[in-house]
Amino acid sequence: MSTETGRARPSGRRPGDSGTRDAILTAALTLFAERGYDGSSIRAIATAAGVDPALVRHFFGDKDGLFAAAIGSVTPGLLVVALGDDPAAAGRSLADAYLGMWENPATRPVLLALVRSATTSPAAAHMLREVIGAKLRHVAGLDGVAPDRVALAASQLLGVAVARHVIGLEPVVALSHEELVERVAPGIQRCLTGDG
Amino acid sequence: MSTETGRARPSGRRPGDSGTRDAILTAALTLFAERGYDGSSIRAIATAAGVDPALVRHFFGDKDGLFAAAIGSVTPGLLVVALGDDPAAAGRSLADAYLGMWENPATRPVLLALVRSATTSPAAAHMLREVIGAKLRHVAGLDGVAPDRVALAASQLLGVAVARHVIGLEPVVALSHEELVERVAPGIQRCLTGDG
Repeated sequence: MSTETGRARPSGRRPGDSGTRDAILTAALTLFAERGYDGSSIRAIATAAGVDPALVRHFFGDKDGLFAAAIGSVTPGLLVVALGDDPAAAGRSLADAYLGMWENPATRPVLLALVRSATTSPAAAHMLREVIGAKLRHVAGLDGVAPDRVALAASQLLGVAVARHVIGLEPVVALSHEELVERVAPGIQRCLTGDG
Repeated sequence: MSTETGRARPSGRRPGDSGTRDAILTAALTLFAERGYDGSSIRAIATAAGVDPALVRHFFGDKDGLFAAAIGSVTPGLLVVALGDDPAAAGRSLADAYLGMWENPATRPVLLALVRSATTSPAAAHMLREVIGAKLRHVAGLDGVAPDRVALAASQLLGVAVARHVIGLEPVVALSHEELVERVAPGIQRCLTGDG
């Protein structure tokens, strides 16, 4: 396992390391998004990044560590969505922001990686809970809403995104992003604030 | 999907075969539910069923065939849900029936197998589309509802079920089945019929 000579703590990094590290993270995110956690080996990720698997382990330890780093490399800013000050518009804002992240090539791989991995990997499921549960609660505009309301709204939006981007459910794929937001916003709004 | 006896092609079946066949299907469903399509090999399924892998191939061909048969062994009756004659109650009936199938030990493995597999296997995603799209449209009480409305309602219910049973999202897990139905029914109703 520890075949790497300079495995002196992930500290002793030399100049040039950060480019290699980024290349590994990008390759990892791409593979996790396409194949899920179980389907992506450290070896395959190393090959995609053009490095030795030992280097991947040097930087990230095991696959869990690599997964966490790959997801974390994008998520910090991912859910910083200002929903505005109008509680009556929170449903639409949340639906637009969340489903919009699935349409965005910069953020979609993270969401795909989480969903494709969370269904079979407990570690990935844990991370998805964190993202949905902890982070979503801190989204501006949702801080006054009960956690179970936020969780139910997020769950339903997750289902719509999975139907559209993972399962490819025809009628959901056929709608434009705007139409989709239009259609689900009232239900999400009701879920968040109990308004009719 | 005719999983029944009249499958005379991969034949030469002798008396006693149907018990073996059922044992393979049960083992397959269990493994697909726990590990998903990618994580379940024909060899592992054969071992769980106590048979030779060659016998699995004899009955079902490849893994796709086995997956289809395992899902089909339960789904025919799965979605025969009478939603009643009251269109205003369709949202609640659908939510109760669908989420109830996830609570039911007899049907949950099929749903878990589909979800755990559909995120990484195109063949499984296809079957899930079939189950959601084609079969759900024929549920009594939904025949007059536009397919995109049914698909969006089903997607949101799928998201709730995944959050509860796969991801384990705390606030969604904490609710009872009845509370959950209570909370999502109005949004599903609005989605189905456009009512307030």
